[in-house]
Amino acid sequence: MGILRNPYLRQIRRKPSSILGPLTIIILLCYLLFGTSNDPSNNSNNGQLSNNNLNIQNKYSYKPKNKNLFSRAPSDLIPNILPGDHISHFDLNKLASTPMAVYNKEKVLILSPMSKFLNQYWANLLKLTYPRELIELGFIVPRNSDGDKVLNFLEVAIKQVQTGPKEKRFSKITILRQDNDSIRSQKEKDRHALSIQKERRSSMALARNSLLFTTLSPFTSWVLWLDADIVESPTTLIQDLIAHDKPVISANCYQRFFDDSKKKESIRPYDFNNWVESEEGLKIASNMRDDEIIVEGYANIATYRPLMAHFYDANGDVNTEMQLDGIGGAAVLVKADVHRDGAMFPPFPFYHLIETEGFAKMTKRLGYEVFGLPNYLVYHYNE
Amino acid sequence: MGILRNPYLRQIRRKPSSILGPLTIIILLCYLLFGTSNDPSNNSNNGQLSNNNLNIQNKYSYKPKNKNLFSRAPSDLIPNILPGDHISHFDLNKLASTPMAVYNKEKVLILSPMSKFLNQYWANLLKLTYPRELIELGFIVPRNSDGDKVLNFLEVAIKQVQTGPKEKRFSKITILRQDNDSIRSQKEKDRHALSIQKERRSSMALARNSLLFTTLSPFTSWVLWLDADIVESPTTLIQDLIAHDKPVISANCYQRFFDDSKKKESIRPYDFNNWVESEEGLKIASNMRDDEIIVEGYANIATYRPLMAHFYDANGDVNTEMQLDGIGGAAVLVKADVHRDGAMFPPFPFYHLIETEGFAKMTKRLGYEVFGLPNYLVYHYNE
Repeated sequence: MGILRNPYLRQIRRKPSSILGPLTIIILLCYLLFGTSNDPSNNSNNGQLSNNNLNIQNKYSYKPKNKNLFSRAPSDLIPNILPGDHISHFDLNKLASTPMAVYNKEKVLILSPMSKFLNQYWANLLKLTYPRELIELGFIVPRNSDGDKVLNFLEVAIKQVQTGPKEKRFSKITILRQDNDSIRSQKEKDRHALSIQKERRSSMALARNSLLFTTLSPFTSWVLWLDADIVESPTTLIQDLIAHDKPVISANCYQRFFDDSKKKESIRPYDFNNWVESEEGLKIASNMRDDEIIVEGYANIATYRPLMAHFYDANGDVNTEMQLDGIGGAAVLVKADVHRDGAMFPPFPFYHLIETEGFAKMTKRLGYEVFGLPNYLVYHYNE
Repeated sequence: MGILRNPYLRQIRRKPSSILGPLTIIILLCYLLFGTSNDPSNNSNNGQLSNNNLNIQNKYSYKPKNKNLFSRAPSDLIPNILPGDHISHFDLNKLASTPMAVYNKEKVLILSPMSKFLNQYWANLLKLTYPRELIELGFIVPRNSDGDKVLNFLEVAIKQVQTGPKEKRFSKITILRQDNDSIRSQKEKDRHALSIQKERRSSMALARNSLLFTTLSPFTSWVLWLDADIVESPTTLIQDLIAHDKPVISANCYQRFFDDSKKKESIRPYDFNNWVESEEGLKIASNMRDDEIIVEGYANIATYRPLMAHFYDANGDVNTEMQLDGIGGAAVLVKADVHRDGAMFPPFPFYHLIETEGFAKMTKRLGYEVFGLPNYLVYHYNE
């Protein structure tokens, strides 16, 4: 009984209530503070999971066994997406994508394939005013030294935000490393040579699909495709695009440059992939072999398609909409249900279209309409 | 100072060390046991997240600040998929889908659209011998009274498994409720009327896509599509299909029945969607309007396509493979990367094919080959 020579234990033996009373209180307190192993609510960042507007089928939810008293919200309102949980219910019908997105706390997933990290892209992203607790980010970077550099820059940038004030953090960030070296290092000249467009766009489509298929969650309401070379947009980009309440809507992508002839800063159209189909375009397609594609913006395939880039009117209403048949990927907002129905970026010729242009066609085949905003500009980096 | 009349507090004031010593130990212990709010490792079920074979880019991982001493595995080896975490890295190139799946701890996602809950389906699922800690399940149920019934049955069935012994639990289960009433209540007769095939298959494709897009995770290696009316398969179904190491591989779907003429139990082919393209089939397609589809297994469209259902040889090698151009959805194993590249189930006519048959065509357009196992049988429920 040597152990009982310990003065603490002797004290307990002599006057058990004097110690065991407070101990019980302390243990209970510890449990309430730290006892969260099966309770997802304490894992939510800023509680964003607990105050989102998902309507989980309560009657089919299991309550975590270890549920503690002071958890932030009733666990049966929380989507149990944690691996330790047994079952999660998501009612897709009650998942809304509406113009009341902020009020409804609708989640937005911003996806950017990234072969180069631009400070201006990141700075612009951070200026967006949609609540960050409702934003998830997804990046896919190439498997090469450029990708290594991107990862290093991303790490620093993300660390700064995600270790900062809680209310300024993004809800979740996923970075994928591609399974092949498909987004190659691209110089401006190379990137636009028509001869390699098909291969490049096909690789980009694969990257977009990998990113999309692995990051879309049951509670995503909107997906914003934002190219990593978009360095300037209105800070209300997300809310502005959401306000149009369209299945797919694309901003108009311009570029700032110094106009030597006029000796001043100016802007010029950059992305020619936002277009309306033309008779000529259809005719060219109908005479093509199965595996040939039309890529817009090259003089040697004269489709005479009306290009949204040319419809910009500096004095026009910024909310003017136009229906499109092809889109680019610069800044495109998609209702998550459109993707869930199957809309992906064809890496193969789909009606002689590929990647974002093929995506627009696929979206239309799924029964949705595609829109563009000719007077709503975002700006591409000028190399 | 009335509060100090409490005997416990007086005791602390007089002999603080006698109580505060053990208290400190207890608080520390509580913290180690329960203090997990930022540490994902304690949330992993059976630690499956910690022993999977993902090679996370360690140098870009953040260590949770609240990391406690006795967590099951170093947190920087764990994909930080929890919403409270700041960043997750997934290297898709190091995510394997190999015949060494069990050894490599490759994750399998089993997906079943379900408009009816069959006890035999569930019993067969539970007999599968692939380690459950590596299996995630995903179900999508229709928005109608049939769907309500399915949810009730699923709840009971899942509860039994997931509250049982830890090593017998599935890694994760997701149930989606469809956003429209698209998998309708289907009587055997109705279901096969050619006239409504297109609409039915299109709805089923939408359901499959919703399920796929929302459940595929960055660490899924394989996807097993297992129809909810498959009531019997070899218990090694997953390992057997994995062993073939093919991008897409389909089992042969038969049905048990009582043969009145021979007065004994027998089997007969059931799923005719596993087929090889024929010249006749291509010719029919080439003369079709854009929106028409061919569905296999109906006498009034004579494609003369070789059907895998007819290649079954009771005495043949169970591992015999055949290349296919169309597949059914009864029991199909797909490498997750095939889906990530963009392979989905077209709800619209795709080369005049739809749903699983269109999926096979899309897989081929993505550059993958599709296989079937004519002598490897799974059995469809007999209504």
